[in-house]
Amino acid sequence: MSEKRGRKRGERGGRRAGGGRESRRAARTAGPVEQLRAIQRRIPKVELLSAEGLELIEHNADTILEEVGIEFHDDPECLEMFRNAGADVRDTRVRFPRGLARRLCSTAPAQFTQYARNPEHSVEIGGEHTVFAPVYGPPFVRDLDKGRRYGTIEDFRNFVKLTWLSPALHHSGGTVCEPVDVPINKRHLDMVYAHMRWSDKPFMGSVTHPERAADTVAMAKILFGDAFVDKNCVCTSLINANSPMVYDATMLGALKTYAKAGQATVVSPFILAGAMAPVTVAGVMAQTLAEAMAGIAVTQLCRPGTPVIFGSFSSSISMQSGAPTFGTPEPALALFGLAALARRLNLPFRNGGSLCASKLPDAQAAYESANTLMPTVLAGVNFVLHAAGWLEGGLASSYEKLIMDADQLAMQQVIAGGYDLTENGQALSAVREVGPGSHYLGCQHTQDNFETAFWRSAVADNNSFEQWQSDGSKDIVVRANERWKAMLAGYEAPPIDPAIDEALNAFIAKKKESLPDGIG
Amino acid sequence: MSEKRGRKRGERGGRRAGGGRESRRAARTAGPVEQLRAIQRRIPKVELLSAEGLELIEHNADTILEEVGIEFHDDPECLEMFRNAGADVRDTRVRFPRGLARRLCSTAPAQFTQYARNPEHSVEIGGEHTVFAPVYGPPFVRDLDKGRRYGTIEDFRNFVKLTWLSPALHHSGGTVCEPVDVPINKRHLDMVYAHMRWSDKPFMGSVTHPERAADTVAMAKILFGDAFVDKNCVCTSLINANSPMVYDATMLGALKTYAKAGQATVVSPFILAGAMAPVTVAGVMAQTLAEAMAGIAVTQLCRPGTPVIFGSFSSSISMQSGAPTFGTPEPALALFGLAALARRLNLPFRNGGSLCASKLPDAQAAYESANTLMPTVLAGVNFVLHAAGWLEGGLASSYEKLIMDADQLAMQQVIAGGYDLTENGQALSAVREVGPGSHYLGCQHTQDNFETAFWRSAVADNNSFEQWQSDGSKDIVVRANERWKAMLAGYEAPPIDPAIDEALNAFIAKKKESLPDGIG
Repeated sequence: MSEKRGRKRGERGGRRAGGGRESRRAARTAGPVEQLRAIQRRIPKVELLSAEGLELIEHNADTILEEVGIEFHDDPECLEMFRNAGADVRDTRVRFPRGLARRLCSTAPAQFTQYARNPEHSVEIGGEHTVFAPVYGPPFVRDLDKGRRYGTIEDFRNFVKLTWLSPALHHSGGTVCEPVDVPINKRHLDMVYAHMRWSDKPFMGSVTHPERAADTVAMAKILFGDAFVDKNCVCTSLINANSPMVYDATMLGALKTYAKAGQATVVSPFILAGAMAPVTVAGVMAQTLAEAMAGIAVTQLCRPGTPVIFGSFSSSISMQSGAPTFGTPEPALALFGLAALARRLNLPFRNGGSLCASKLPDAQAAYESANTLMPTVLAGVNFVLHAAGWLEGGLASSYEKLIMDADQLAMQQVIAGGYDLTENGQALSAVREVGPGSHYLGCQHTQDNFETAFWRSAVADNNSFEQWQSDGSKDIVVRANERWKAMLAGYEAPPIDPAIDEALNAFIAKKKESLPDGIG
Repeated sequence: MSEKRGRKRGERGGRRAGGGRESRRAARTAGPVEQLRAIQRRIPKVELLSAEGLELIEHNADTILEEVGIEFHDDPECLEMFRNAGADVRDTRVRFPRGLARRLCSTAPAQFTQYARNPEHSVEIGGEHTVFAPVYGPPFVRDLDKGRRYGTIEDFRNFVKLTWLSPALHHSGGTVCEPVDVPINKRHLDMVYAHMRWSDKPFMGSVTHPERAADTVAMAKILFGDAFVDKNCVCTSLINANSPMVYDATMLGALKTYAKAGQATVVSPFILAGAMAPVTVAGVMAQTLAEAMAGIAVTQLCRPGTPVIFGSFSSSISMQSGAPTFGTPEPALALFGLAALARRLNLPFRNGGSLCASKLPDAQAAYESANTLMPTVLAGVNFVLHAAGWLEGGLASSYEKLIMDADQLAMQQVIAGGYDLTENGQALSAVREVGPGSHYLGCQHTQDNFETAFWRSAVADNNSFEQWQSDGSKDIVVRANERWKAMLAGYEAPPIDPAIDEALNAFIAKKKESLPDGIG
């Protein structure tokens, strides 16, 4: 009843401020937000689990490491390093005396810079920073026009370009989709090149074979120079534990290649609770902490001080169907707890994103994504993979969802920025000028702050029903579709030194020649 | 790349646990969650603003009350009460010496029970509790079949019934939509009756005229008995300030009627920042606190100790079009700050909901709603109006969104419930039993916790793409549409004493006869 009055007043204000035509113009020109190097936090990191609870989980992680241990498969070098470090190694099982794993992690930096070829796009990973990277890994892509289909290298390049054009995405990511039209043994070369050539944001390297990791480092050295790469982090790559409590040779090989080259890895237990971990949040946290510490320890045994991110991917399965679920409350609780546990380890933390199980970029996808993203930001996650474009439990990269999610990411700096308590922020002059029963639309303070007052979405429609109707009654997916096409149409590649580009292409050509054909 | 492996393992688990057919059966039978009397909180209340910041806002609110003051229009009784309480009253302007307004609020209870006619549905408002009520106020309704149209009394009854059938909605709310097919001067009788008859959850009363508030109290006395109503809260009604800094005679009249009858009100500055308050979050908070304390003071001057909720509805307008926006970051920051300010006043707090500007229950609606709901729960809001069904900036009540939002509400108890750190919660027995490289699907701990392990959505689809396709490729709106129709088809009214029902109908008939016709 009475709340309508307030709203109507808002609409009256709208007409005074310009009305339909102006609003349409604003919608068209709603530009990208300022490119940030990371979200910079000025609010506390939200913790939901008590200090006693965190200590209990740490104790349980040490119990798992001590009693059960972790398997390191087909990697004698790794077992030897652990034996020398004081672990109890029998066959491929490594058990850690209490406190050893934590001690081995302690040489890793709490925060590091990942350099981009454009120094303005270098990112800070750790501390008060949150870095957003796009979806990683889907074999399929989806858009409104062509539906769901296998990803191609053209799709891959498109996602790299759209990410580069999205200021809220600080990082170019890695496997933005699987380019299944390129043979699997050569694919990594085209993927890494696409990140290097069609973007100048920081990127991730290949992890599907130690040699492909080495190729990534070699290409990075062409791009940045050998000496620079040896002393600085220029790529961050994703290493998954084979939960529960196993690291396999592929992942260990890639991990060691990067660590020895001084390059960062995200060591991530990949857990769907109920399948790869117990069905309880406390159980997921203890196992994740145990697995992550064991994997991180390997990076530090390879090269003490090499940058590494405590990673965690955790969701649940439906106990009825076994299907993975996303945006549910249990993973959010695990995320809050694990973020605090990573801080107590003094390491950057990865988790979260814009995860969903929905097959379409519909309301299910958005609820689930927002339910993941907000805990991600509030908990103070430092590196966020899958921050935009993830659909269908990670099976599809969605063009429209990339745009919609990136829009959501753009507002996170405002939340993380906290409260402006300056005299202008307090705005008492406005209250004094306006007084009871009037409105603030034209007052001096409003005019002074007009440009920057509120965060503006690039894809939300806030117009009146009638205006929206006369604009074609579009839902947000249609608007996102229009937006990514306009972005790609206006894309201009960032410049690159032609000699470097030539050297990269020569490396790729030579490498491809050396590899057998037809391995898909 | 490597994250696919984990997902596939989850799917394999799925087949073992039953696969497609079982999953379909589960989806069909996914029943309502257990009916709770409120969300019961076991996590800390999230605060983003420092104690110094909160003190500054309190200081500024007192400055507004002292220097600018609040207008109380057309209500000499109110002015007289303030004069006697020590305020500086000139014409209709009331200025408060520092600390007076806060002192006047101090007689209100920090927590109270609103009784429902079914005692199992009585709710606790305040403290560690969060109570969800549906959307309030829209003149339009929308569903997938008939689109957007004016609301009718049949729609009103449907929303009451669907709310009653939704265990995550603890409260029946008030104007779930405007029944525009009933004359405006008689409408309140049919609305209050619908809440009393077709639900047995607690409800809100009419505020559009003091006499309609009195009718609400009179009907409540028929339902609960005179003596009970005089000593207990049986309705909670929404009083909006006419921001900035005005209370009008209609709202004051209703407020006083309820307060004198010992009934609760939600005293809510309704603020779209940029129109009714400054464009800054700190400005919005200071003005809201000042207005709320002034209105709450009236309830305590009428009857010290009468229950009252510190209300706040705050969003922003688009500075380009003047249209209201929802789900943006500034209102979330204001919500976190105001929740803390209400706690420092020792009062229950209302804010938030599932607010959105979208015209459709699409991804825009869901992102915006989730962006409002999660801060609502994390900040510890006690009474949440518009928790389900709100669409189009509050202009439309959506059948499908009511279902989708209620599903989101159902998971909030899991978040608010925090961490299970019992031995079963820690799940070390599961880790020991399963060990490295195996899976948890069949282990004893998983079997023991199978039924309650994870929160289950009633409308999300987590099936494989192929299963989803063979089920008709439905988006969440189609599934929600099927769900509300099935719910209404299965609705059976809660029993009521026939003598009371007769007395209510007699009261309504007599009252309607006494009112002129054709006032719309």
